[in-house]
Amino acid sequence: MSQFNHNKYASFKPVALTNRQWPNNSINQAPQWCSVDLRDGNQALIEPMSVEQKQRLFALLIKLGFKEIEVGFPAASTTDYDFVRWLIETNQIPDDVSIQVLTQARPALISRTFEALKGAKNAIVHLYNSTSKVQRDKVFKLDKAGIINIAVQGAKELQKHADQNPHTNWQFQYSPESFTGTELDFAVEICNAVVAQWRPKAQQKIILNLPATVEMSTPNVYADQIEWFIQHIAHREDIIISQHTHNDRGCGIAAAELGQLAGADRVEGTLLGNGERTGNMDIVTMAMNLYSQGIDPKLDLADIDEIVQVVKFCTQLPVHPRHPYVGELVFTAFSGSHQDAIKKCLDIQQADQHWDVAYLPIDPADLGRDYQEVIRINSQSGKGGIAYILDKDYGIQLPRWALIEFSAIVQADAEKSGEEISPEKIWRLFNNHYLEQAQGYKLTNYQVNYQQQEQIQVLIERKQQRCDIQASGNGALAAFVNGLAAEFKQQIEVLDYNEHALSKGAEAEAVCYIETKIAGKRYLGVAIDKDILTASLKALLCAFNQQLITEEQRQPQPA
Amino acid sequence: MSQFNHNKYASFKPVALTNRQWPNNSINQAPQWCSVDLRDGNQALIEPMSVEQKQRLFALLIKLGFKEIEVGFPAASTTDYDFVRWLIETNQIPDDVSIQVLTQARPALISRTFEALKGAKNAIVHLYNSTSKVQRDKVFKLDKAGIINIAVQGAKELQKHADQNPHTNWQFQYSPESFTGTELDFAVEICNAVVAQWRPKAQQKIILNLPATVEMSTPNVYADQIEWFIQHIAHREDIIISQHTHNDRGCGIAAAELGQLAGADRVEGTLLGNGERTGNMDIVTMAMNLYSQGIDPKLDLADIDEIVQVVKFCTQLPVHPRHPYVGELVFTAFSGSHQDAIKKCLDIQQADQHWDVAYLPIDPADLGRDYQEVIRINSQSGKGGIAYILDKDYGIQLPRWALIEFSAIVQADAEKSGEEISPEKIWRLFNNHYLEQAQGYKLTNYQVNYQQQEQIQVLIERKQQRCDIQASGNGALAAFVNGLAAEFKQQIEVLDYNEHALSKGAEAEAVCYIETKIAGKRYLGVAIDKDILTASLKALLCAFNQQLITEEQRQPQPA
Repeated sequence: MSQFNHNKYASFKPVALTNRQWPNNSINQAPQWCSVDLRDGNQALIEPMSVEQKQRLFALLIKLGFKEIEVGFPAASTTDYDFVRWLIETNQIPDDVSIQVLTQARPALISRTFEALKGAKNAIVHLYNSTSKVQRDKVFKLDKAGIINIAVQGAKELQKHADQNPHTNWQFQYSPESFTGTELDFAVEICNAVVAQWRPKAQQKIILNLPATVEMSTPNVYADQIEWFIQHIAHREDIIISQHTHNDRGCGIAAAELGQLAGADRVEGTLLGNGERTGNMDIVTMAMNLYSQGIDPKLDLADIDEIVQVVKFCTQLPVHPRHPYVGELVFTAFSGSHQDAIKKCLDIQQADQHWDVAYLPIDPADLGRDYQEVIRINSQSGKGGIAYILDKDYGIQLPRWALIEFSAIVQADAEKSGEEISPEKIWRLFNNHYLEQAQGYKLTNYQVNYQQQEQIQVLIERKQQRCDIQASGNGALAAFVNGLAAEFKQQIEVLDYNEHALSKGAEAEAVCYIETKIAGKRYLGVAIDKDILTASLKALLCAFNQQLITEEQRQPQPA
Repeated sequence: MSQFNHNKYASFKPVALTNRQWPNNSINQAPQWCSVDLRDGNQALIEPMSVEQKQRLFALLIKLGFKEIEVGFPAASTTDYDFVRWLIETNQIPDDVSIQVLTQARPALISRTFEALKGAKNAIVHLYNSTSKVQRDKVFKLDKAGIINIAVQGAKELQKHADQNPHTNWQFQYSPESFTGTELDFAVEICNAVVAQWRPKAQQKIILNLPATVEMSTPNVYADQIEWFIQHIAHREDIIISQHTHNDRGCGIAAAELGQLAGADRVEGTLLGNGERTGNMDIVTMAMNLYSQGIDPKLDLADIDEIVQVVKFCTQLPVHPRHPYVGELVFTAFSGSHQDAIKKCLDIQQADQHWDVAYLPIDPADLGRDYQEVIRINSQSGKGGIAYILDKDYGIQLPRWALIEFSAIVQADAEKSGEEISPEKIWRLFNNHYLEQAQGYKLTNYQVNYQQQEQIQVLIERKQQRCDIQASGNGALAAFVNGLAAEFKQQIEVLDYNEHALSKGAEAEAVCYIETKIAGKRYLGVAIDKDILTASLKALLCAFNQQLITEEQRQPQPA
């Protein structure tokens, strides 16, 4: 049973910081980013990433512009070891990118770590040991000198192996793990001891990484810790101060931002915040926070849909609909007064002026998204609600993202016609836009063959046009995507997919919803059929027709 | 297409704050909480809450201990109006609770607002108008005097209606909406003008609410804004300073915490952060942050499962698995070194000492949860993985929460036996624990009748015991829950439910997973059957047997 009693907890002791400076500062440049998706992120998954998932994530990180990527803990995991070898041996690492690997301070592990890195052009070797009071007293049962000894011996080993392998451009990183639970003077003491081992010979600056392994205080206290540490650490000029925050109190991003004000140079985090327990610092949000203030984030996050898709594929975790900048609800407005204000601002927003639109902190188009007005659906009246009517009268249960798309169509029509939105009107719009599509291509017939991959042959027709499409792919739908894309020379991506049995209607029919991105814009496709494969092909064609018709209406054909 | 270019944004101007004090402060008490779930939260849903949902949420808020609850915008919505009337007329509001309603400054709306509140014992009337530069210039096209005039006229109307209705204990609240986008001196000017209308007669302190309608800066700047505002506002002693933050930059909680350091007295937010776009400030997380520091949060959040269930039911939105304090992954540890450290700390944690366990910021038992060690599943080897083996060899696709539960059972067995975990061993454990349950009750037969509610009659048997259960409920499963609970005098709740067709096996069978809470602890039930209803009843019985057997093993029966 629950034992809800706050008295069993002690409060975090504030930092005795004199002459505090960080609240006077502003952020005016991006920190040095380091992605730890493939290490800290991967470690926090029930099912760690497969080789294929790791490869896709690494390729994405490179594409986004990361220059430092922690790729694993090779001495602790054969898969990590093999992945590092694959990266190096198949030349996956651009010359301006450093891979980073984690290791504990034991000689055998360090030896194995350097083995994994053989042949790398640039490598960061990341040494850590636990330094907090609870870890010293209860887990390691060592005094401070014993803990320092672990770190110093490890540091010596790193130097030794680096000396023996002079062809790699080595950089060293040390983390006093559980820094936020470590007395600040001891953190400085142990870091100074490690730096003393490395500094005279270091080819590059030494990275001292200060993890909020567990977030233990309000974020201003973390900034105080960073500022105190920087005030007291020796050889500051030879050191890169790195942050690594977690989100136990929901303030991981805030802590990293305030820590940067306090003088930290570098931030470790993950895409969309995957990581132990409540997650690591979300680099996408922190980078977009910079972006929205006119600061170059030094990452190209334009194709946010691809980021979401790859992260979902690799972590098997959902992205919350309210996740800053990327969630499906963050660029919508439901209230009439918000919609009105946004409209007025958008009407007079000039391309050469700074963005200044009420309720929209950034232009959704920057991330390939649309601003969406959404009609609020009143399930209580049983009359006005789009979802309510489609479900109760027609058995159509639109997923949320599809409802948002369709609601915008209803809204646009209502504003144009000035008519009230009757149930019949909603169904007519739904039918015209998705199920009928008098103007669009129709699926005439298709044939699927399977041999290693699916090969598909589809005939589609429209007015006088016939189009015979042949393509292959992983699955019949993917093959059709490839075929349509090639035939019409368009970029076509499937972003989301949903299906269910129709709850209304005489026979067992399935309805299929597909969210696509075609030529950079989102289109929803819907189709109903007795066969689920046929429904999915029709739904894709439906989305494609949306795009086709929209484009034709924009650019009328010459008579 | 995407237009990723940071140059179109301007940076937020820092606050010219002299003698900044807030970074020297610590939080040592809970703020005055105000829930805006039923207004701001509800307004941000595609499908607004039904009457039933509103009633359940209101009842929960009362149970948790909220003393101020914004219940709607009655002048703008008939449903809100009716809900307020229902609250008052059916005496739903305890004497020590104030309901709060929002209104714009127009006389007709204010009049309707007071009509809605007729007969209330304590009511907060919350007046707002937009004050930011972009709203003044682009939306309202009024100068500062014009905007002040709107607010002052509204304030006068509030006073007039309050004077006419002396039987209610009135409190007034004013929000300069879009405060974070408003010049600070103007925010103070308009608030002073409003306060001047109310102060001489006010029976209670006036609430000035300073919304980060859109989060526009790092959270320290919001704290600077609050401190500057407090330095300059007149009649501070008669005023309650309230915060209302949103999460556009992922720092809504941080902003409220730093704002509290800066002197704010009160916080508006929602349970688990539902609200416009990226959401409102999450009161559960902020309150648990206080709790984890030994501070009385002034809310009873012990039954976190109920909070999650009601919020999901009312918002139809998911809760992310990494949501602080409540997500399904936040009390798990995957890495061996974390598990080892936690174990060592738990072994020596004394009941009379402050909580001090590595990697566990709070004791999960406080929220009715367990700490869960989870074996990481290696899908790459194709051998060691629990999920992999159950799926590939037996067609069982465990949902994530079920995998976490079962993984702990495998881990415990592996540690006890010291044996390697073979695929056969995994299946045997799964079979023994869920499908066979040699020690537990078996479902012998059942009968369901439907008339308004489902009535169920179930015969279960175990060794020599026969047990005839009769009960009713909304659905056969709910009826069986009620019956079992009554028969065995246990609290039984269903927390989660999942089913799928078995992908292996000759005939079309369904597997059903049920997560239950019985006598305060979680138990997973699993069952396979050709009939989905039978599978669900068996799965519930399976969970019940888990609890029964666990309890019996703990307290051996006398011979």
